[in-house]
Amino acid sequence: MSDLRPPEHQVAGHRASANKLGPLVDDSGLFYKPLQAGDRGEQERAFYEAFSAHAAVPPRIRDAFFPRFHGTRLLPTEARPGEPHPHLVLDDLLAGLQAPSVADIKIGAITWPPSSPEPYVAKCLAKDRGTTSVLLGFRVSGVRVVAPGGAVWRPERPELKALDTAGVRRVLRRYVSSVSGEVADCALAAAVYGGEGGVLSQLRELKAWFEEQTLFHFYSASILLGYDANAVSATGAGGGVRVKLVDFAHVAEGDGVIDHNFLGGLCSLIKFISDIVSEPPLAP
Amino acid sequence: MSDLRPPEHQVAGHRASANKLGPLVDDSGLFYKPLQAGDRGEQERAFYEAFSAHAAVPPRIRDAFFPRFHGTRLLPTEARPGEPHPHLVLDDLLAGLQAPSVADIKIGAITWPPSSPEPYVAKCLAKDRGTTSVLLGFRVSGVRVVAPGGAVWRPERPELKALDTAGVRRVLRRYVSSVSGEVADCALAAAVYGGEGGVLSQLRELKAWFEEQTLFHFYSASILLGYDANAVSATGAGGGVRVKLVDFAHVAEGDGVIDHNFLGGLCSLIKFISDIVSEPPLAP
Repeated sequence: MSDLRPPEHQVAGHRASANKLGPLVDDSGLFYKPLQAGDRGEQERAFYEAFSAHAAVPPRIRDAFFPRFHGTRLLPTEARPGEPHPHLVLDDLLAGLQAPSVADIKIGAITWPPSSPEPYVAKCLAKDRGTTSVLLGFRVSGVRVVAPGGAVWRPERPELKALDTAGVRRVLRRYVSSVSGEVADCALAAAVYGGEGGVLSQLRELKAWFEEQTLFHFYSASILLGYDANAVSATGAGGGVRVKLVDFAHVAEGDGVIDHNFLGGLCSLIKFISDIVSEPPLAP
Repeated sequence: MSDLRPPEHQVAGHRASANKLGPLVDDSGLFYKPLQAGDRGEQERAFYEAFSAHAAVPPRIRDAFFPRFHGTRLLPTEARPGEPHPHLVLDDLLAGLQAPSVADIKIGAITWPPSSPEPYVAKCLAKDRGTTSVLLGFRVSGVRVVAPGGAVWRPERPELKALDTAGVRRVLRRYVSSVSGEVADCALAAAVYGGEGGVLSQLRELKAWFEEQTLFHFYSASILLGYDANAVSATGAGGGVRVKLVDFAHVAEGDGVIDHNFLGGLCSLIKFISDIVSEPPLAP
Protein backbone atom coordinates (compact mmCIF):
# COMPACT_ATOMS: atom_id res chain seq x y z
CA MET A 1 0.00 0.00 0.00
CA SER A 2 3.03 2.27 0.32
CA ASP A 3 2.85 3.14 -3.38
CA LEU A 4 -0.54 4.92 -3.01
CA ARG A 5 -0.40 8.45 -4.38
CA PRO A 6 -2.66 11.06 -6.01
CA PRO A 7 -2.82 10.45 -9.77
CA GLU A 8 -0.47 12.69 -11.70
CA HIS A 9 -2.92 13.20 -14.56
CA GLN A 10 -6.19 13.96 -12.79
CA VAL A 11 -8.19 16.62 -14.64
CA ALA A 12 -11.47 16.89 -12.71
CA GLY A 13 -12.68 16.50 -9.14
CA HIS A 14 -10.85 17.15 -5.86
CA ARG A 15 -7.15 16.34 -5.56
CA ALA A 16 -6.17 14.32 -2.49
CA SER A 17 -4.29 16.46 0.03
CA ALA A 18 -4.00 17.16 3.74
CA ASN A 19 -7.26 19.11 3.45
CA LYS A 20 -9.31 17.05 1.06
CA LEU A 21 -10.12 13.50 0.18
CA GLY A 22 -9.24 12.68 -3.39
CA PRO A 23 -8.51 9.66 -5.57
CA LEU A 24 -5.33 7.62 -5.26
CA VAL A 25 -3.54 5.24 -7.61
CA ASP A 26 -0.98 2.50 -7.07
CA ASP A 27 1.62 0.75 -9.21
CA SER A 28 -0.60 -2.24 -9.91
CA GLY A 29 -2.95 -0.20 -12.14
CA LEU A 30 -5.71 0.40 -9.61
CA PHE A 31 -7.56 3.65 -8.92
CA TYR A 32 -9.05 4.29 -5.47
CA LYS A 33 -11.94 6.73 -5.41
CA PRO A 34 -13.03 7.88 -1.94
CA LEU A 35 -16.73 7.28 -1.33
CA GLN A 36 -18.38 10.70 -1.60
CA ALA A 37 -20.27 12.23 1.30
CA GLY A 38 -24.03 11.95 1.77
CA ASP A 39 -25.93 9.58 -0.51
CA ARG A 40 -23.59 10.03 -3.44
CA GLY A 41 -20.89 7.62 -2.42
CA GLU A 42 -23.40 4.94 -1.54
CA GLN A 43 -25.24 5.48 -4.82
CA GLU A 44 -22.08 5.22 -6.87
CA ARG A 45 -21.11 2.02 -5.06
CA ALA A 46 -24.61 0.63 -5.62
CA PHE A 47 -24.37 1.48 -9.32
CA TYR A 48 -21.03 -0.30 -9.71
CA GLU A 49 -22.37 -3.38 -7.97
CA ALA A 50 -25.57 -3.49 -10.02
CA PHE A 51 -23.78 -2.73 -13.28
CA SER A 52 -20.97 -5.24 -12.73
CA ALA A 53 -23.42 -8.07 -12.18
CA HIS A 54 -26.16 -7.07 -14.66
CA ALA A 55 -26.86 -9.88 -17.12
CA ALA A 56 -28.31 -7.47 -19.70
CA VAL A 57 -25.13 -5.40 -20.04
CA PRO A 58 -23.11 -6.73 -23.00
CA PRO A 59 -19.65 -7.82 -21.78
CA ARG A 60 -18.06 -5.94 -24.68
CA ILE A 61 -19.68 -2.67 -23.51
CA ARG A 62 -18.70 -3.25 -19.89
CA ASP A 63 -15.10 -4.08 -20.79
CA ALA A 64 -14.56 -1.42 -23.41
CA PHE A 65 -16.29 1.59 -21.86
CA PHE A 66 -16.35 1.22 -18.08
CA PRO A 67 -13.67 0.91 -15.43
CA ARG A 68 -13.67 -2.54 -13.91
CA PHE A 69 -14.97 -2.54 -10.32
CA HIS A 70 -12.99 -4.40 -7.67
CA GLY A 71 -15.15 -3.70 -4.63
CA THR A 72 -14.47 -1.21 -1.86
CA ARG A 73 -11.54 -0.89 0.51
CA LEU A 74 -10.86 1.09 3.69
CA LEU A 75 -7.74 3.19 3.21
CA PRO A 76 -5.88 5.64 5.41
CA THR A 77 -5.99 9.18 4.02
CA GLU A 78 -3.86 12.23 4.50
CA ALA A 79 -6.96 14.36 5.07
CA ARG A 80 -8.24 12.24 7.98
CA PRO A 81 -5.33 10.57 9.76
CA GLY A 82 -6.29 7.62 11.92
CA GLU A 83 -9.72 7.39 10.32
CA PRO A 84 -9.67 5.00 7.35
CA HIS A 85 -12.13 5.97 4.61
CA PRO A 86 -13.98 3.60 2.22
CA HIS A 87 -12.79 3.80 -1.38
CA LEU A 88 -14.18 2.32 -4.57
CA VAL A 89 -11.44 0.19 -6.12
CA LEU A 90 -11.45 0.61 -9.90
CA ASP A 91 -9.13 0.14 -12.83
CA ASP A 92 -6.82 3.10 -13.33
CA LEU A 93 -8.03 4.12 -16.78
CA LEU A 94 -4.77 5.88 -17.62
CA ALA A 95 -2.43 3.11 -16.45
CA GLY A 96 0.22 2.33 -19.02
CA LEU A 97 0.10 5.69 -20.76
CA GLN A 98 3.53 7.38 -20.61
CA ALA A 99 2.29 10.88 -21.33
CA PRO A 100 -1.50 10.87 -20.98
CA SER A 101 -3.47 13.57 -22.75
CA VAL A 102 -6.81 13.51 -20.99
CA ALA A 103 -10.22 15.15 -21.36
CA ASP A 104 -13.18 14.85 -19.00
CA ILE A 105 -16.44 15.69 -20.76
CA LYS A 106 -19.66 15.76 -18.73
CA ILE A 107 -22.47 14.50 -20.94
CA GLY A 108 -26.10 15.64 -21.03
CA ALA A 109 -28.01 18.92 -21.23
CA ILE A 110 -29.64 17.89 -17.93
CA THR A 111 -27.33 16.83 -15.08
CA TRP A 112 -29.95 16.23 -12.36
CA PRO A 113 -31.96 13.01 -12.04
CA PRO A 114 -35.70 13.74 -12.51
CA SER A 115 -36.46 12.69 -8.94
CA SER A 116 -34.09 15.32 -7.46
CA PRO A 117 -35.40 17.78 -4.88
CA GLU A 118 -36.06 21.34 -6.03
CA PRO A 119 -32.96 23.06 -4.59
CA TYR A 120 -30.65 20.52 -6.21
CA VAL A 121 -32.40 20.97 -9.56
CA ALA A 122 -32.01 24.74 -9.29
CA LYS A 123 -28.32 24.45 -8.44
CA CYS A 124 -27.58 22.07 -11.31
CA LEU A 125 -29.73 24.03 -13.76
CA ALA A 126 -27.79 27.20 -13.00
CA LYS A 127 -24.52 25.37 -13.77
CA ASP A 128 -25.97 23.70 -16.86
CA ARG A 129 -27.16 27.05 -18.21
CA GLY A 130 -23.99 28.85 -17.13
CA THR A 131 -21.78 26.39 -19.00
CA THR A 132 -22.32 24.81 -22.42
CA SER A 133 -24.37 21.85 -21.10
CA VAL A 134 -27.82 23.12 -22.11
CA LEU A 135 -26.60 24.51 -25.41
CA LEU A 136 -24.32 21.68 -26.56
CA GLY A 137 -25.54 18.73 -24.52
CA PHE A 138 -22.11 18.46 -22.88
CA ARG A 139 -19.40 20.51 -21.20
CA VAL A 140 -15.65 20.09 -20.89
CA SER A 141 -14.95 19.57 -17.16
CA GLY A 142 -11.23 19.03 -17.42
CA VAL A 143 -8.47 18.74 -19.98
CA ARG A 144 -4.74 18.07 -19.97
CA VAL A 145 -2.71 18.03 -23.15
CA VAL A 146 0.92 16.95 -23.38
CA ALA A 147 2.86 18.50 -26.25
CA PRO A 148 5.61 16.43 -27.93
CA GLY A 149 8.36 18.22 -25.97
CA GLY A 150 6.57 17.29 -22.76
CA ALA A 151 5.03 20.70 -22.02
CA VAL A 152 1.62 20.30 -20.41
CA TRP A 153 -1.39 22.52 -21.13
CA ARG A 154 -4.00 22.30 -18.44
CA PRO A 155 -6.50 25.13 -18.23
CA GLU A 156 -7.91 25.97 -14.80
CA ARG A 157 -11.52 25.25 -13.93
CA PRO A 158 -12.80 28.86 -14.19
CA GLU A 159 -11.43 29.00 -17.74
CA LEU A 160 -13.24 25.78 -18.66
CA LYS A 161 -16.48 26.91 -17.05
CA ALA A 162 -16.42 30.10 -19.10
CA LEU A 163 -16.07 28.31 -22.46
CA ASP A 164 -18.66 29.08 -25.13
CA THR A 165 -19.37 26.97 -28.23
CA ALA A 166 -16.34 28.31 -30.09
CA GLY A 167 -14.19 27.76 -27.00
CA VAL A 168 -15.26 24.12 -26.72
CA ARG A 169 -14.41 23.62 -30.37
CA ARG A 170 -10.97 25.18 -29.73
CA VAL A 171 -10.31 22.89 -26.77
CA LEU A 172 -11.35 19.79 -28.72
CA ARG A 173 -9.02 20.83 -31.56
CA ARG A 174 -6.15 21.61 -29.22
CA TYR A 175 -6.60 18.22 -27.56
CA VAL A 176 -5.31 16.62 -30.76
CA SER A 177 -2.74 19.24 -31.75
CA SER A 178 0.98 18.74 -31.61
CA VAL A 179 1.97 22.34 -30.99
CA SER A 180 1.28 24.41 -27.95
CA GLY A 181 0.97 27.74 -29.76
CA GLU A 182 -2.16 29.69 -30.66
CA VAL A 183 -2.83 27.81 -33.87
CA ALA A 184 -4.11 24.29 -33.23
CA ASP A 185 -2.82 22.16 -36.10
CA CYS A 186 -4.97 19.12 -35.27
CA ALA A 187 -1.98 17.01 -36.37
CA LEU A 188 -3.14 14.06 -34.25
CA ALA A 189 -6.82 14.28 -35.21
CA ALA A 190 -6.66 11.45 -37.73
CA ALA A 191 -4.79 9.15 -35.33
CA VAL A 192 -6.68 9.95 -32.10
CA TYR A 193 -10.19 10.92 -33.24
CA GLY A 194 -10.40 9.14 -36.60
CA GLY A 195 -9.43 5.70 -37.79
CA GLU A 196 -9.99 2.24 -36.43
CA GLY A 197 -10.14 2.17 -32.63
CA GLY A 198 -10.11 5.98 -32.55
CA VAL A 199 -12.36 8.14 -30.38
CA LEU A 200 -15.01 8.53 -33.06
CA SER A 201 -15.45 4.84 -33.77
CA GLN A 202 -15.58 4.11 -30.04
CA LEU A 203 -18.15 6.85 -29.42
CA ARG A 204 -20.29 5.46 -32.26
CA GLU A 205 -20.19 1.99 -30.73
CA LEU A 206 -21.26 3.52 -27.42
CA LYS A 207 -24.04 5.42 -29.18
CA ALA A 208 -25.45 2.22 -30.68
CA TRP A 209 -25.75 0.81 -27.18
CA PHE A 210 -27.41 3.96 -25.86
CA GLU A 211 -30.03 3.80 -28.62
CA GLU A 212 -31.18 0.50 -27.14
CA GLN A 213 -30.27 0.31 -23.46
CA THR A 214 -33.04 1.12 -20.99
CA LEU A 215 -31.28 -0.04 -17.83
CA PHE A 216 -29.58 3.12 -16.55
CA HIS A 217 -29.81 6.88 -16.98
CA PHE A 218 -26.33 8.34 -16.54
CA TYR A 219 -27.08 11.82 -15.20
CA SER A 220 -23.96 13.88 -14.62
CA ALA A 221 -21.61 11.14 -15.78
CA SER A 222 -18.55 11.99 -17.88
CA ILE A 223 -16.78 10.52 -20.84
CA LEU A 224 -13.06 10.37 -20.15
CA LEU A 225 -10.83 10.49 -23.21
CA GLY A 226 -7.20 9.47 -22.94
CA TYR A 227 -4.31 8.79 -25.28
CA ASP A 228 -0.55 8.54 -24.98
CA ALA A 229 0.94 11.70 -26.45
CA ASN A 230 4.37 10.05 -26.74
CA ALA A 231 3.13 6.93 -28.50
CA VAL A 232 0.84 8.74 -30.90
CA SER A 233 3.43 11.27 -32.05
CA ALA A 234 6.12 8.59 -32.40
CA THR A 235 4.03 6.13 -34.40
CA GLY A 236 1.23 8.20 -35.87
CA ALA A 237 -1.10 5.40 -34.84
CA GLY A 238 -3.72 5.10 -32.11
CA GLY A 239 -1.53 5.55 -29.05
CA GLY A 240 -3.84 3.55 -26.82
CA VAL A 241 -6.91 5.74 -27.30
CA ARG A 242 -9.34 5.28 -24.41
CA VAL A 243 -13.00 6.23 -24.17
CA LYS A 244 -14.51 5.50 -20.77
CA LEU A 245 -17.55 6.47 -18.76
CA VAL A 246 -16.89 7.71 -15.21
CA ASP A 247 -18.72 9.35 -12.28
CA PHE A 248 -21.87 7.47 -11.42
CA ALA A 249 -23.12 9.17 -8.26
CA HIS A 250 -26.30 10.35 -10.03
CA VAL A 251 -27.23 7.35 -12.12
CA ALA A 252 -30.98 6.61 -12.09
CA GLU A 253 -32.85 3.47 -13.08
CA GLY A 254 -33.84 3.40 -16.73
CA ASP A 255 -37.18 1.75 -16.13
CA GLY A 256 -37.63 0.70 -19.76
CA VAL A 257 -36.78 4.12 -21.20
CA ILE A 258 -33.58 4.97 -23.10
CA ASP A 259 -31.21 7.59 -21.69
CA HIS A 260 -32.24 10.21 -24.25
CA ASN A 261 -30.40 12.93 -22.34
CA PHE A 262 -27.02 11.17 -22.46
CA LEU A 263 -27.63 9.94 -26.01
CA GLY A 264 -28.41 13.45 -27.28
CA GLY A 265 -25.26 14.89 -25.70
CA LEU A 266 -23.20 11.99 -27.03
CA CYS A 267 -24.49 12.61 -30.56
CA SER A 268 -23.59 16.28 -30.20
CA LEU A 269 -20.05 15.39 -29.09
CA ILE A 270 -19.75 12.97 -32.00
CA LYS A 271 -20.72 15.77 -34.40
CA PHE A 272 -18.09 18.13 -32.92
CA ILE A 273 -15.38 15.50 -33.21
CA SER A 274 -16.38 14.32 -36.68
CA ASP A 275 -16.32 17.97 -37.83
CA ILE A 276 -12.68 18.16 -36.66
CA VAL A 277 -11.74 14.88 -38.36
CA SER A 278 -13.32 16.13 -41.61
CA GLU A 279 -11.37 19.39 -41.69
CA PRO A 280 -8.82 19.55 -44.48
CA PRO A 281 -5.31 19.30 -42.97
CA LEU A 282 -3.40 22.55 -42.54
CA ALA A 283 -0.78 23.30 -45.14
CA PRO A 284 2.64 22.68 -43.53
CA MET B 1 -63.26 31.91 -48.24
CA SER B 2 -66.75 30.85 -47.14
CA ASP B 3 -65.60 27.27 -46.56
CA LEU B 4 -63.31 28.29 -43.67
CA ARG B 5 -63.99 26.26 -40.53
CA PRO B 6 -62.23 24.90 -37.46
CA PRO B 7 -60.57 21.57 -38.28
CA GLU B 8 -62.64 18.62 -37.19
CA HIS B 9 -59.62 16.60 -36.08
CA GLN B 10 -57.59 19.09 -34.06
CA VAL B 11 -55.98 17.44 -31.03
CA ALA B 12 -53.86 20.19 -29.46
CA GLY B 13 -53.92 23.97 -29.10
CA HIS B 14 -56.90 26.34 -28.87
CA ARG B 15 -60.02 25.66 -30.90
CA ALA B 16 -61.37 28.62 -32.89
CA SER B 17 -64.57 29.97 -31.34
CA ALA B 18 -66.35 33.19 -30.49
CA ASN B 19 -63.96 33.53 -27.54
CA LYS B 20 -60.65 32.35 -28.94
CA LEU B 21 -58.56 32.46 -32.03
CA GLY B 22 -57.82 29.04 -33.41
CA PRO B 23 -56.78 27.37 -36.65
CA LEU B 24 -59.07 27.12 -39.66
CA VAL B 25 -59.09 24.86 -42.69
CA ASP B 26 -60.71 25.11 -46.09
CA ASP B 27 -61.74 22.70 -48.85
CA SER B 28 -58.61 23.29 -50.89
CA GLY B 29 -56.35 21.52 -48.34
CA LEU B 30 -54.99 24.60 -46.60
CA PHE B 31 -54.60 25.16 -42.86
CA TYR B 32 -54.70 28.69 -41.46
CA LYS B 33 -52.90 29.15 -38.14
CA PRO B 34 -53.53 32.48 -36.41
CA LEU B 35 -50.29 34.30 -35.61
CA GLN B 36 -49.77 33.88 -31.85
CA ALA B 37 -49.59 36.85 -29.53
CA GLY B 38 -46.33 38.48 -28.43
CA ASP B 39 -43.13 37.42 -30.16
CA ARG B 40 -44.29 33.88 -30.79
CA GLY B 41 -46.33 34.49 -33.91
CA GLU B 42 -43.61 36.59 -35.44
CA GLN B 43 -40.97 34.00 -34.55
CA GLU B 44 -42.98 31.19 -36.08
CA ARG B 45 -43.48 33.21 -39.25
CA ALA B 46 -39.76 34.03 -39.36
CA PHE B 47 -38.93 30.34 -38.96
CA TYR B 48 -41.21 29.30 -41.83
CA GLU B 49 -39.70 31.96 -44.08
CA ALA B 50 -36.11 31.03 -43.22
CA PHE B 51 -36.77 27.29 -43.41
CA SER B 52 -38.69 27.44 -46.70
CA ALA B 53 -35.84 29.26 -48.41
CA HIS B 54 -32.86 27.58 -46.73
CA ALA B 55 -30.51 26.07 -49.28
CA ALA B 56 -29.04 23.63 -46.74
CA VAL B 57 -32.37 21.94 -45.97
CA PRO B 58 -32.70 18.83 -48.16
CA PRO B 59 -35.87 19.12 -50.30
CA ARG B 60 -36.82 15.56 -49.37
CA ILE B 61 -36.80 16.50 -45.64
CA ARG B 62 -38.77 19.69 -46.23
CA ASP B 63 -41.38 17.92 -48.36
CA ALA B 64 -41.73 14.78 -46.27
CA PHE B 65 -41.69 16.16 -42.74
CA PHE B 66 -42.86 19.77 -42.75
CA PRO B 67 -46.06 21.50 -43.77
CA ARG B 68 -45.55 23.60 -46.87
CA PHE B 69 -45.67 27.34 -46.11
CA HIS B 70 -47.79 29.57 -48.34
CA GLY B 71 -47.16 32.94 -46.67
CA THR B 72 -49.50 34.81 -44.36
CA ARG B 73 -53.03 36.07 -44.91
CA LEU B 74 -55.35 38.44 -43.04
CA LEU B 75 -58.58 36.62 -42.23
CA PRO B 76 -61.77 37.61 -40.44
CA THR B 77 -62.26 35.65 -37.22
CA GLU B 78 -65.24 34.85 -35.09
CA ALA B 79 -63.34 35.89 -31.96
CA ARG B 80 -62.58 39.41 -33.24
CA PRO B 81 -65.28 40.54 -35.68
CA GLY B 82 -64.30 43.44 -37.94
CA GLU B 83 -60.62 43.00 -37.05
CA PRO B 84 -58.89 40.69 -39.53
CA HIS B 85 -56.06 38.70 -37.97
CA PRO B 86 -52.85 37.52 -39.73
CA HIS B 87 -52.69 33.75 -40.25
CA LEU B 88 -49.89 31.49 -41.40
CA VAL B 89 -51.10 29.64 -44.49
CA LEU B 90 -49.89 26.03 -44.39
CA ASP B 91 -50.76 22.68 -45.89
CA ASP B 92 -53.52 20.92 -43.99
CA LEU B 93 -51.55 17.87 -42.89
CA LEU B 94 -54.67 15.75 -42.48
CA ALA B 95 -56.29 16.68 -45.80
CA GLY B 96 -57.47 13.63 -47.70
CA LEU B 97 -57.80 11.37 -44.66
CA GLN B 98 -61.40 10.15 -44.29
CA ALA B 99 -61.11 9.15 -40.64
CA PRO B 100 -57.87 10.64 -39.29
CA SER B 101 -56.36 9.06 -36.21
CA VAL B 102 -53.99 11.72 -34.92
CA ALA B 103 -51.36 12.10 -32.22
CA ASP B 104 -49.48 15.27 -31.25
CA ILE B 105 -46.23 14.45 -29.45
CA LYS B 106 -44.13 17.30 -28.08
CA ILE B 107 -40.48 16.35 -28.45
CA GLY B 108 -37.59 17.15 -26.11
CA ALA B 109 -36.83 16.90 -22.39
CA ILE B 110 -36.26 20.67 -22.49
CA THR B 111 -38.99 22.83 -24.08
CA TRP B 112 -37.45 26.28 -23.50
CA PRO B 113 -34.81 27.83 -25.74
CA PRO B 114 -31.56 28.38 -23.77
CA SER B 115 -31.83 32.15 -24.20
CA SER B 116 -35.24 32.29 -22.47
CA PRO B 117 -35.76 34.62 -19.50
CA GLU B 118 -35.87 33.04 -16.04
CA PRO B 119 -39.65 33.09 -15.43
CA TYR B 120 -40.33 31.39 -18.75
CA VAL B 121 -37.73 28.71 -17.97
CA ALA B 122 -39.32 28.10 -14.57
CA LYS B 123 -42.80 27.83 -16.10
CA CYS B 124 -41.70 25.39 -18.80
CA LEU B 125 -39.54 23.37 -16.42
CA ALA B 126 -42.50 22.86 -14.09
CA LYS B 127 -44.55 21.51 -17.02
CA ASP B 128 -41.65 19.40 -18.31
CA ARG B 129 -41.16 17.83 -14.88
CA GLY B 130 -44.90 17.54 -14.24
CA THR B 131 -45.41 15.60 -17.47
CA THR B 132 -43.24 12.89 -19.01
CA SER B 133 -41.00 15.32 -20.93
CA VAL B 134 -37.98 15.18 -18.61
CA LEU B 135 -38.32 11.46 -18.02
CA LEU B 136 -39.06 10.26 -21.56
CA GLY B 137 -37.80 13.13 -23.70
CA PHE B 138 -41.32 13.64 -25.04
CA ARG B 139 -44.94 13.98 -23.95
CA VAL B 140 -48.24 13.22 -25.66
CA SER B 141 -50.01 16.57 -26.08
CA GLY B 142 -53.04 15.31 -27.93
CA VAL B 143 -54.49 12.14 -29.40
CA ARG B 144 -57.60 11.14 -31.33
CA VAL B 145 -58.24 7.58 -32.36
CA VAL B 146 -61.03 6.46 -34.66
CA ALA B 147 -62.22 2.90 -34.17
CA PRO B 148 -63.41 0.90 -37.22
CA GLY B 149 -67.07 1.53 -36.36
CA GLY B 150 -66.35 5.26 -36.31
CA ALA B 151 -66.27 5.73 -32.54
CA VAL B 152 -63.72 8.36 -31.55
CA TRP B 153 -61.49 8.17 -28.47
CA ARG B 154 -60.07 11.53 -27.53
CA PRO B 155 -58.80 11.92 -23.99
CA GLU B 156 -59.03 15.38 -22.43
CA ARG B 157 -55.94 17.43 -21.75
CA PRO B 158 -55.80 16.85 -17.96
CA GLU B 159 -55.82 13.10 -18.59
CA LEU B 160 -52.90 13.43 -21.02
CA LYS B 161 -50.95 15.69 -18.69
CA ALA B 162 -51.25 13.13 -15.91
CA LEU B 163 -49.83 10.26 -17.98
CA ASP B 164 -46.82 8.40 -16.57
CA THR B 165 -44.45 6.13 -18.51
CA ALA B 166 -46.89 3.22 -18.50
CA GLY B 167 -49.70 5.57 -19.53
CA VAL B 168 -47.74 6.86 -22.52
CA ARG B 169 -47.05 3.29 -23.58
CA ARG B 170 -50.79 2.54 -23.30
CA VAL B 171 -51.72 5.55 -25.42
CA LEU B 172 -49.17 4.66 -28.11
CA ARG B 173 -50.55 1.10 -28.19
CA ARG B 174 -54.14 2.25 -28.29
CA TYR B 175 -53.30 4.61 -31.15
CA VAL B 176 -52.83 1.54 -33.36
CA SER B 177 -55.53 -0.67 -31.91
CA SER B 178 -58.72 -1.57 -33.69
CA VAL B 179 -60.91 -2.00 -30.65
CA SER B 180 -62.01 0.62 -28.21
CA GLY B 181 -62.08 -1.60 -25.15
CA GLU B 182 -59.61 -1.89 -22.30
CA VAL B 183 -57.30 -4.31 -24.08
CA ALA B 184 -55.34 -2.62 -26.85
CA ASP B 185 -54.83 -5.28 -29.53
CA CYS B 186 -52.27 -3.25 -31.54
CA ALA B 187 -53.88 -4.77 -34.64
CA LEU B 188 -52.71 -1.85 -36.80
CA ALA B 189 -49.18 -1.67 -35.36
CA ALA B 190 -47.56 -3.49 -38.27
CA ALA B 191 -49.35 -1.37 -40.87
CA VAL B 192 -49.09 2.05 -39.18
CA TYR B 193 -45.87 1.87 -37.13
CA GLY B 194 -43.96 -0.83 -39.00
CA GLY B 195 -43.33 -1.56 -42.64
CA GLU B 196 -42.26 0.56 -45.55
CA GLY B 197 -43.46 4.15 -45.25
CA GLY B 198 -44.68 3.47 -41.71
CA VAL B 199 -44.12 5.74 -38.72
CA LEU B 200 -40.95 3.98 -37.64
CA SER B 201 -39.19 4.18 -40.98
CA GLN B 202 -40.17 7.84 -41.30
CA LEU B 203 -38.95 8.64 -37.79
CA ARG B 204 -35.65 6.93 -38.57
CA GLU B 205 -35.20 9.01 -41.69
CA LEU B 206 -35.89 12.13 -39.62
CA LYS B 207 -33.40 10.95 -37.00
CA ALA B 208 -30.64 10.62 -39.61
CA TRP B 209 -31.20 14.26 -40.54
CA PHE B 210 -31.16 15.37 -36.89
CA GLU B 211 -27.81 13.63 -36.37
CA GLU B 212 -26.32 16.01 -38.91
CA GLN B 213 -28.37 19.20 -39.11
CA THR B 214 -27.03 22.18 -37.17
CA LEU B 215 -29.37 24.83 -38.60
CA PHE B 216 -32.29 24.88 -36.17
CA HIS B 217 -33.09 23.78 -32.62
CA PHE B 218 -36.76 22.86 -32.45
CA TYR B 219 -37.63 23.63 -28.84
CA SER B 220 -41.23 22.82 -27.97
CA ALA B 221 -42.05 21.56 -31.47
CA SER B 222 -44.26 18.52 -31.93
CA ILE B 223 -44.32 15.50 -34.15
CA LEU B 224 -47.80 15.03 -35.56
CA LEU B 225 -48.74 11.47 -36.49
CA GLY B 226 -51.72 10.82 -38.71
CA TYR B 227 -53.25 7.90 -40.57
CA ASP B 228 -56.60 7.08 -42.11
CA ALA B 229 -58.36 4.63 -39.83
CA ASN B 230 -60.79 3.65 -42.60
CA ALA B 231 -58.11 3.02 -45.20
CA VAL B 232 -55.80 1.12 -42.89
CA SER B 233 -58.44 -1.23 -41.57
CA ALA B 234 -59.86 -1.85 -45.05
CA THR B 235 -56.56 -2.58 -46.75
CA GLY B 236 -54.20 -3.50 -43.94
CA ALA B 237 -51.64 -1.28 -45.65
CA GLY B 238 -50.19 2.09 -44.77
CA GLY B 239 -53.36 4.19 -44.88
CA GLY B 240 -51.49 7.38 -45.74
CA VAL B 241 -49.29 7.42 -42.65
CA ARG B 242 -48.05 10.95 -41.97
CA VAL B 243 -45.18 12.09 -39.77
CA LYS B 244 -44.83 15.87 -39.64
CA LEU B 245 -43.15 18.48 -37.49
CA VAL B 246 -45.36 21.33 -36.27
CA ASP B 247 -45.29 24.30 -33.86
CA PHE B 248 -42.23 26.43 -34.42
CA ALA B 249 -42.76 29.43 -32.14
CA HIS B 250 -39.69 28.52 -30.06
CA VAL B 251 -37.20 27.44 -32.70
CA ALA B 252 -33.68 28.76 -32.06
CA GLU B 253 -30.73 29.03 -34.40
CA GLY B 254 -28.55 25.94 -34.40
CA ASP B 255 -25.30 27.85 -34.71
CA GLY B 256 -23.29 24.81 -35.82
CA VAL B 257 -24.58 22.52 -33.06
CA ILE B 258 -27.00 19.62 -33.56
CA ASP B 259 -30.40 19.69 -31.83
CA HIS B 260 -29.36 17.09 -29.24
CA ASN B 261 -32.51 17.77 -27.21
CA PHE B 262 -34.92 16.98 -30.06
CA LEU B 263 -32.73 14.10 -31.27
CA GLY B 264 -32.66 12.47 -27.84
CA GLY B 265 -36.45 12.69 -27.49
CA LEU B 266 -36.91 11.41 -31.02
CA CYS B 267 -34.71 8.37 -30.27
CA SER B 268 -36.75 7.71 -27.15
CA LEU B 269 -40.01 7.85 -29.14
CA ILE B 270 -38.49 5.52 -31.74
CA LYS B 271 -37.65 3.03 -28.97
CA PHE B 272 -41.21 3.15 -27.59
CA ILE B 273 -42.70 2.56 -31.02
CA SER B 274 -40.24 -0.14 -32.06
CA ASP B 275 -40.99 -1.95 -28.78
CA ILE B 276 -44.67 -2.01 -29.79
CA VAL B 277 -43.90 -3.23 -33.32
CA SER B 278 -41.73 -6.02 -31.88
CA GLU B 279 -44.43 -7.34 -29.53
CA PRO B 280 -45.74 -10.74 -30.52
CA PRO B 281 -49.29 -10.35 -31.88
CA LEU B 282 -52.15 -11.18 -29.50
CA ALA B 283 -53.75 -14.55 -29.98
CA PRO B 284 -57.15 -14.02 -31.67
